[in-house]
Amino acid sequence: DEELDAARYAEVAEDLEPDQVALLLESLPRDERQECWEQVPEEQRVDVLVEMRAEARAPLVKELDSRTLDQLISGLDAETLIELGESLPDDVVDIALARMDERQRAHYERSAQYDEDAIGRYVDHDLLILPQNSRVRDAERLLRREVPEYTTHLWLVDRTGRYTGAVPTLSLFGKPDHLPLVDLIDDEIEPLSALRSLKEATEAFEHAEISALPVVDENGLLLGRMSMRLALELLHEQYESQMMASAGLDEEEDLFAPVMRSSRRRATWLGINLLTAFLASWAIGLFEGTLQQVVALAVLMPVVASMGGIAGSQTLTLMIRGLALGQITAANMMPLLRKELSVGGLNGVLWAVVIGIVASWWFSSFAIGVVIALAIVVNIAVAALSGVLIPILLDKLKIDPALSGSVILTTVTDVVGFVVFLGLGSLFLL
Amino acid sequence: DEELDAARYAEVAEDLEPDQVALLLESLPRDERQECWEQVPEEQRVDVLVEMRAEARAPLVKELDSRTLDQLISGLDAETLIELGESLPDDVVDIALARMDERQRAHYERSAQYDEDAIGRYVDHDLLILPQNSRVRDAERLLRREVPEYTTHLWLVDRTGRYTGAVPTLSLFGKPDHLPLVDLIDDEIEPLSALRSLKEATEAFEHAEISALPVVDENGLLLGRMSMRLALELLHEQYESQMMASAGLDEEEDLFAPVMRSSRRRATWLGINLLTAFLASWAIGLFEGTLQQVVALAVLMPVVASMGGIAGSQTLTLMIRGLALGQITAANMMPLLRKELSVGGLNGVLWAVVIGIVASWWFSSFAIGVVIALAIVVNIAVAALSGVLIPILLDKLKIDPALSGSVILTTVTDVVGFVVFLGLGSLFLL
Repeated sequence: DEELDAARYAEVAEDLEPDQVALLLESLPRDERQECWEQVPEEQRVDVLVEMRAEARAPLVKELDSRTLDQLISGLDAETLIELGESLPDDVVDIALARMDERQRAHYERSAQYDEDAIGRYVDHDLLILPQNSRVRDAERLLRREVPEYTTHLWLVDRTGRYTGAVPTLSLFGKPDHLPLVDLIDDEIEPLSALRSLKEATEAFEHAEISALPVVDENGLLLGRMSMRLALELLHEQYESQMMASAGLDEEEDLFAPVMRSSRRRATWLGINLLTAFLASWAIGLFEGTLQQVVALAVLMPVVASMGGIAGSQTLTLMIRGLALGQITAANMMPLLRKELSVGGLNGVLWAVVIGIVASWWFSSFAIGVVIALAIVVNIAVAALSGVLIPILLDKLKIDPALSGSVILTTVTDVVGFVVFLGLGSLFLL
Repeated sequence: DEELDAARYAEVAEDLEPDQVALLLESLPRDERQECWEQVPEEQRVDVLVEMRAEARAPLVKELDSRTLDQLISGLDAETLIELGESLPDDVVDIALARMDERQRAHYERSAQYDEDAIGRYVDHDLLILPQNSRVRDAERLLRREVPEYTTHLWLVDRTGRYTGAVPTLSLFGKPDHLPLVDLIDDEIEPLSALRSLKEATEAFEHAEISALPVVDENGLLLGRMSMRLALELLHEQYESQMMASAGLDEEEDLFAPVMRSSRRRATWLGINLLTAFLASWAIGLFEGTLQQVVALAVLMPVVASMGGIAGSQTLTLMIRGLALGQITAANMMPLLRKELSVGGLNGVLWAVVIGIVASWWFSSFAIGVVIALAIVVNIAVAALSGVLIPILLDKLKIDPALSGSVILTTVTDVVGFVVFLGLGSLFLL
């Protein structure tokens, strides 16, 4: 591992892409980050800010003096302002808009109408557009100028700006000058609707054999394009945010967020989990008398809870993937439940025997072995059942099972595990 | 949700892409899957098999009669055989190779040399290659034929097949026929080394503004190309496999794997977790005498363990993301530890007070409130410390912290939590 601090920054910065500078800045504690930021060349600053997480970006923007901020916001294009928007004070956004050229401002206003999860918000406007009655010679003239990255097609529109078709640039080679472009349209390319979600955009790229797709609004108006490169970035963010959410964290969370703010945010998740822990305690509390007489039960409680929790989360994880891929339907729910119950049954019996033997030997009591073995079988079966049903239920309620499934599942396996184990203990050991 | 069963398959199949058929087949129980598979048109079968998970694919391949298998393997290209290889018996692979044309066989043999995580294994060979002394007219002649998808560049090689440069196809427009192509080389494109990992390939696409990159071997020989589309698919698989691994599951796991096989695989993970649960039990067992006298301690144990586990996994998740992005270095480890300990300290004190009050009231004992409050503070601090150090340690040992970090962390917080809580209980409550 190399040390990356403000002093070394100057040496390495020249070779770094804006997203790498952003990662480096985010890895520094906030005071060092500020120092290092001041060494980023002015012409790179906007690109670096765009790549940073909102929470790490905001304080850097706040510290800018008005002259620098001024330079930074003059000449912003629509995409960049959309991306930076949430970190800029409203009045700065207004100034930036006032300074934009009219076309970019129109782009901005159209994009800003779409919400955070809609494709329309993230279109870029670097695309080559021609009227639908253009000919091969018009296309060739356009292509002789500088072309935007990922350009593989020209886009045709009618007089009102409605999308009419895509012409592969390579199809132009060897074609006569006067041939109408409509004769070269590739019918297999379907434009994306601006209202569709980002997830649908990444799916579209898995089928479309093209590196940038046209995006149209509800009326068929060509708004811009979305590149596969952006889809790759969005997929990355989507997974990162899912991983963070499963621990009650936000994707924008800064590694060096201020202690107070970070504590406050995490407190909520701890609070929710505390409630579930108290629920488990309450279940145990029902059997205080039994515990007092057979203290071995208290010692073995974590084994029962843990085995249920682990078996359940294996089923849950399989279900979460299946739901994400659209593979769980009303038709296969019952066979799936049967299969998971069988797997749970087999593993339940196997580990019940192992645990039963260990517990009997440990506490020199055959009865304790039998009690924990029964509790393990029941709890692993309940875990399989919950692992299948909880995510299906959450999905029906439009709650992401990847987010809250695990908390609910372990609450169920904890409570059921404790009640069954201590309940059987009360019956057979007193 | 729509029911997707064998009977309905025929109606919808025409509109489905091979990957969608694969998802549909995987969502069916194994006997229905076989029925449905038999309705897949022969010309689509290879593409569907390629898209399926290895574990779901293998039994379908096994059931093929020799005539069908024969049809299926004649005319395979190198990429497809690489992809299907693991599901085909060795002798079938040999027959497929014998039937391949010589060029494809050479491609296959080169790709098969690279291991599962290397770029070289997954290159495709659909690229337009020209000798480096070619001129614009040669390029235009080549482009008039059918071009592979994602073609934005032509690749130049020397007489021995070494990669010498990339020529953007669009740069050809308006250039004189006799201009040497070397004059049009785009210097910004750097070929991928075949030995690099798939993760590095997806990172390269975030910087290269191109939809397919050339791949070269150790000697600079042009092996083929890797498309951004494949990078997108690989990123998807990588995240899926990480999610599955965190529950001790394999990415290739079939939703309807046979019960015996599935049980056997999951048993290992349950066994590992059982050992950690017994460790927690052992810790509790040290305090049997105390538990017998103060049964309230047994009731409250899950609260101490749970709060430590949750607080720890928040820190752990933040660290896992930081490590994946290369943001954790020797230089920022100490400030990070300080910050996480501060956050843990604040939340520890906050929740210690809340839990202390609830416990005092529940068991009408101020002393119990004090004991659990102290235990919570200590355990959340230990959780923050472990959340930072465990992933760093695992990373140094080249073990993926996303895989085993959580098990180790909760073992630490369980054991420390129980020992501190019951230890304090023994000191103050007896």
